[in-house]
Amino acid sequence: MADRIGIIVNGATGRMTKNQHLINSLVPIRRDGGVKLSNGTHLIPDLLLVGRNADALEALADHLGIEKWSTDLDAALADQQYPIYFDGVTTKLRANNLLRAIKAGKHVYCEKPTAEKAADAFAVANAAKAAGIRHGVVQDKLWAPGMFKLGQLAKSGFFGKILSVRIDGCYWVFEGDLQRPQRPSWNYRAKDGGGMILDMMPHYHYMIEDIVAPVERLVCLGANHIETRWDEAGQPYRSDADDACYAILQLKGGIVAQVMSSWCIRVRRDDIINMAIDGTNGSAIAGLKNCWIQPRLATPKAQWSLDAAAPVDFYSDWQLLPETDPYVNAFRLEWELFLRAVVEGSPFPWNLDVAAGGVQLAELSEQSWHEGRWVDVPQKTM
Amino acid sequence: MADRIGIIVNGATGRMTKNQHLINSLVPIRRDGGVKLSNGTHLIPDLLLVGRNADALEALADHLGIEKWSTDLDAALADQQYPIYFDGVTTKLRANNLLRAIKAGKHVYCEKPTAEKAADAFAVANAAKAAGIRHGVVQDKLWAPGMFKLGQLAKSGFFGKILSVRIDGCYWVFEGDLQRPQRPSWNYRAKDGGGMILDMMPHYHYMIEDIVAPVERLVCLGANHIETRWDEAGQPYRSDADDACYAILQLKGGIVAQVMSSWCIRVRRDDIINMAIDGTNGSAIAGLKNCWIQPRLATPKAQWSLDAAAPVDFYSDWQLLPETDPYVNAFRLEWELFLRAVVEGSPFPWNLDVAAGGVQLAELSEQSWHEGRWVDVPQKTM
Amino acid sequence: MADRIGIIVNGATGRMTKNQHLINSLVPIRRDGGVKLSNGTHLIPDLLLVGRNADALEALADHLGIEKWSTDLDAALADQQYPIYFDGVTTKLRANNLLRAIKAGKHVYCEKPTAEKAADAFAVANAAKAAGIRHGVVQDKLWAPGMFKLGQLAKSGFFGKILSVRIDGCYWVFEGDLQRPQRPSWNYRAKDGGGMILDMMPHYHYMIEDIVAPVERLVCLGANHIETRWDEAGQPYRSDADDACYAILQLKGGIVAQVMSSWCIRVRRDDIINMAIDGTNGSAIAGLKNCWIQPRLATPKAQWSLDAAAPVDFYSDWQLLPETDPYVNAFRLEWELFLRAVVEGSPFPWNLDVAAGGVQLAELSEQSWHEGRWVDVPQKTM
Amino acid sequence: MADRIGIIVNGATGRMTKNQHLINSLVPIRRDGGVKLSNGTHLIPDLLLVGRNADALEALADHLGIEKWSTDLDAALADQQYPIYFDGVTTKLRANNLLRAIKAGKHVYCEKPTAEKAADAFAVANAAKAAGIRHGVVQDKLWAPGMFKLGQLAKSGFFGKILSVRIDGCYWVFEGDLQRPQRPSWNYRAKDGGGMILDMMPHYHYMIEDIVAPVERLVCLGANHIETRWDEAGQPYRSDADDACYAILQLKGGIVAQVMSSWCIRVRRDDIINMAIDGTNGSAIAGLKNCWIQPRLATPKAQWSLDAAAPVDFYSDWQLLPETDPYVNAFRLEWELFLRAVVEGSPFPWNLDVAAGGVQLAELSEQSWHEGRWVDVPQKTM
Repeated sequence: MADRIGIIVNGATGRMTKNQHLINSLVPIRRDGGVKLSNGTHLIPDLLLVGRNADALEALADHLGIEKWSTDLDAALADQQYPIYFDGVTTKLRANNLLRAIKAGKHVYCEKPTAEKAADAFAVANAAKAAGIRHGVVQDKLWAPGMFKLGQLAKSGFFGKILSVRIDGCYWVFEGDLQRPQRPSWNYRAKDGGGMILDMMPHYHYMIEDIVAPVERLVCLGANHIETRWDEAGQPYRSDADDACYAILQLKGGIVAQVMSSWCIRVRRDDIINMAIDGTNGSAIAGLKNCWIQPRLATPKAQWSLDAAAPVDFYSDWQLLPETDPYVNAFRLEWELFLRAVVEGSPFPWNLDVAAGGVQLAELSEQSWHEGRWVDVPQKTM
Repeated sequence: MADRIGIIVNGATGRMTKNQHLINSLVPIRRDGGVKLSNGTHLIPDLLLVGRNADALEALADHLGIEKWSTDLDAALADQQYPIYFDGVTTKLRANNLLRAIKAGKHVYCEKPTAEKAADAFAVANAAKAAGIRHGVVQDKLWAPGMFKLGQLAKSGFFGKILSVRIDGCYWVFEGDLQRPQRPSWNYRAKDGGGMILDMMPHYHYMIEDIVAPVERLVCLGANHIETRWDEAGQPYRSDADDACYAILQLKGGIVAQVMSSWCIRVRRDDIINMAIDGTNGSAIAGLKNCWIQPRLATPKAQWSLDAAAPVDFYSDWQLLPETDPYVNAFRLEWELFLRAVVEGSPFPWNLDVAAGGVQLAELSEQSWHEGRWVDVPQKTM
Repeated sequence: MADRIGIIVNGATGRMTKNQHLINSLVPIRRDGGVKLSNGTHLIPDLLLVGRNADALEALADHLGIEKWSTDLDAALADQQYPIYFDGVTTKLRANNLLRAIKAGKHVYCEKPTAEKAADAFAVANAAKAAGIRHGVVQDKLWAPGMFKLGQLAKSGFFGKILSVRIDGCYWVFEGDLQRPQRPSWNYRAKDGGGMILDMMPHYHYMIEDIVAPVERLVCLGANHIETRWDEAGQPYRSDADDACYAILQLKGGIVAQVMSSWCIRVRRDDIINMAIDGTNGSAIAGLKNCWIQPRLATPKAQWSLDAAAPVDFYSDWQLLPETDPYVNAFRLEWELFLRAVVEGSPFPWNLDVAAGGVQLAELSEQSWHEGRWVDVPQKTM
Repeated sequence: MADRIGIIVNGATGRMTKNQHLINSLVPIRRDGGVKLSNGTHLIPDLLLVGRNADALEALADHLGIEKWSTDLDAALADQQYPIYFDGVTTKLRANNLLRAIKAGKHVYCEKPTAEKAADAFAVANAAKAAGIRHGVVQDKLWAPGMFKLGQLAKSGFFGKILSVRIDGCYWVFEGDLQRPQRPSWNYRAKDGGGMILDMMPHYHYMIEDIVAPVERLVCLGANHIETRWDEAGQPYRSDADDACYAILQLKGGIVAQVMSSWCIRVRRDDIINMAIDGTNGSAIAGLKNCWIQPRLATPKAQWSLDAAAPVDFYSDWQLLPETDPYVNAFRLEWELFLRAVVEGSPFPWNLDVAAGGVQLAELSEQSWHEGRWVDVPQKTM
């Protein structure tokens, strides 16, 4: 038995929307017979691709076997066959698009960040709450297998009392004169919306708040370590956005979180993002792919040694957590949860309100840096 | 050919002085025929052990084959046969002892910290400078083989422009209820002079300033993660000293240093203290024992992966630096340099002035924590 | 600083007393300067060896550097210099000896079992309680490093709710016709007090009750698998004692313990005694030497496979717990705890009352076997 | 040369029947040219699929290239072209279906258990014997390569006198809140026919009786360790069926068998089911996949050790038995034996009578548990 649900996919031909939301998520969901609901029926998405370029849309729809596409967003929003609106366009347009979709009565799901400014992000979240629709935002790192296990550990009470959290993020991005850079040049120009804090603090926000505890207060230092880079055309340019940030966060319950994120470090750790949690009963370190644990009684006896030999191999007392389910793309997993939330009313905490908190955390981090002081994070009154 | 030089060793029966300064340094120097000077002669230390307990002194002198001991510090300081005074007594007495020795015209060498307060430490340093004597302070981490190589890399210009420094220090210290603790209980009681900042910031100070650059400004957060521990007698006590600190330091030249030091983390890294330096031309990570490098062209291409498998083994592109000299105890190495500085006039930058800077850095870290703000480090006008 | 305490060692020339209590425990305690008390002083045992054979006693005392020996137990018990009495003679004499020592006002420490019959064992325990003296019984398996860690895991709450316990004990004892047997022949003759249940159930009793929970009810089947063995002289004899037992125990809290102990099985497991605990939050398996854990999130996904290949290596997801203290003989550890209990009043739960419970458990196991039914264990009313 | 034999496959679209009996057994037998008989001819099965859903039957028949299907069981049983009836429907219907088929003169083969109650199972077996037809029941574990070798060892006299048997079965089944469960939720609900004893005791029955000896008497304790699980829809439910059982069985000849089967244990052994046999001349331990032996003279000398190090690696003296034939699916092997038994009259001991014994053993195990006592197994008078 199968039900169907219509989804407008706006920004369909953009890189992330095309690859992650269509090719890796919605298309395979359709191919595999839909999302299985708790009553046993399957829910199959009908897709309406929206964008600006008719030719590109037609070609994509044809390539992916999708029945409908349009360049008219208003008409799409007016179509009652499609109760869900997904927004994957550029950040500048997102808040306004979301408001239009909410006004049209759609449930909304979108890429992050949900707005350029926290005030706008919270305005969209409030409009969604007032309209009573379901809303969700991409928080893909939570379903990366390593981070997912870290979250399960926290949920299971593995850590005892959590004491501290450390996030080490990113990696050396080639300057571009010798090796080809891995990231686009606009990421390193302030005027184009580049910068580490804006890019990564929203991710770290949901990783910390979803897995550990709310942030109460922070101090952050941005840095612009590399001042000249070479762009896609091989031309040098002034890279003036922050390419690293260093922050100390106080979380609820006396927990301390240390965040280091840099495109100017050479990585000697397990993955491009590592998140470590230390608790009274055990510790864990997760990358995107894997998660290792060291329970309290497995902690080796470390101490200063007067001899030359390091007395302990500090990698050997960590246990790699096994896979218990085959890997599924993180974007697809979150889509399935959102679709079930829409039709079954199941909880979906990864919403516009939480995402607005991520925009806010980036904003406060920049403020802390520029004003050279600790800043408080306004607490939600729920 | 051999010359001789007399050294007063005060606090001879204390644990560190006995083991590191006598058994691992001065006694082997004597056994191996003295320190070889640049003119080819050997310099052999004559030792005068000083302490309070005549029985213990006599037994130790006897055990180590040392000719003289005394419980009378004034008499020892008046003895012209002994131009060098070493101080290894408790911190409380050190500044005053050093002032007496300086007044008596001795060259002085001592354990760290040189005083409990930065003002006193600078007073001793100024007295030494005014008296024109040679002075030195233990900074053993600089001669741990891994850190020594890190310093050599910096000296050789390996890093190009240094961008950032990260220090991850210490390890989980057992609470004492299940496993026997590795460190004495006074370390965790504020009233007994315990605490991470006081203990480790002076070490991190000389590691950063000697190898990289002077500290200009810092923000620090101390934490008291574990509030109950069990002492040497198995009794629970309130552990109220800071058992972790998290700091961001701005160094001269726009360099950022991040410091994390905790007795409440489970270690997944190469050594109990790791220091990483990233520069435009290469990076290095050193533990006490080993040092790994990754030159610019050896940097792997890291990037986000949409697949489950981590695309890069981030440990494989680091090269372990080889041993080029047999291991020598760090305390002995520094003693040999100091003795040569005294008799040959060679430079000895690890002096009372630098050590006073370490006491000051700990003091400012505590101030930053308690006042919740960035603090500036007064710059030397040399 | 050092205090001294006198100990009468009765049965000094017996195999276990000589090797485990003298050579591995009391003599090394003396050699290492005594037991360190919580006030920092050391407690040094003065020993008085008692036995029947004067020549053997004299030779042993001489060999071990022990000052006093005697063949007169009454005189020894009357000597106020020796406030502690240790009993290591044969089981038949133990209860009566202990009663005499208690009457003489001695603190008592002894080998297990404390009596042949539970009624006698409880009578001795009651006499000790009435006299207000300290009393202790050897429960060495609790300080074997693997079992000790298993106990620490339980104490730390590692298991969550404990569900079940499995003990697999002992190994193939050679019959004696082809290979030389590892154990004395009397162990396999009923009339000489042999038998698995009497020998091992008291051990399993304290392992289960100290680490997990009290036994409420049990069913046991003894077996006499091998009916002919060859003795020390190479002569065949009728081995009619139980050489294996199989039991199911219900513990307090709905926990089930399965016990299998056999001298007629060939061992494919980690050690000669394995004890496994499964709980909601994790499992552990300990041998005498080592302990492995598998926390909840480290549990692999096991399932039936239609293919030939076993889908999971069930050994790989277990983590070996590290050593945090150098190994100390289990008998010595318990002696040190007992001596501290006597002079400092610290708790010592491994006492005559608990040991009487072990004798009782063996008795009830035999009853269950012979009557072919479940039997209840009388619960203590404390 | 080829003969043909008609088989009615009832319940054809069910999971086990479709996968194990059709896809892994009967279809490959047809594809490979049939079962080779002792006279050299090949016997090719003609299949008639029976079920309730015509669409599903047609699709399956089409997919597997099978010529006939029907929803009319009576008509099928009346068809003389098909002398064999296979029953793979739900347990509730099986006994009645088998009686109808026997009445129709068919040889019958079926899944286990053959009935819900032992009385019904024996009634069917008696009807089959009275009718003089051939009858067989799935006992797949006997042809799993490891268990098959264990049976061959027994048949060859490897063990000498068998003393004891141990079965350790099953593994941790995820509760469903953190990891996805490996088994359906009805397995854990008593009202839906769940429970360990009903599921696994019939398997253990034929493993023990076929390989070792008949069961004479048993005591069994069921347990319901985990009381809340999460179902296929992620909803919590009360799991009230027995999820573990612990039993001691006395077999003919004084042999003792210990059985532990649990979905609440974390596995540290070779396979999900291990069966160990100890005998005077040697021991063996088999999983489903592999079998290891330790002959009498290969038995290592195990003993108590006073040192910390385990003196023996108890895994090293076991020898892995080699493969001598390529792996063939256990279900297919038993089908081939049954077909030869039908047409050639060869012995087929895995019949309805034996299977009724398995249902009876489960029933007696539950009775032993609920009445808290040993129960006797009625002995066959053949």
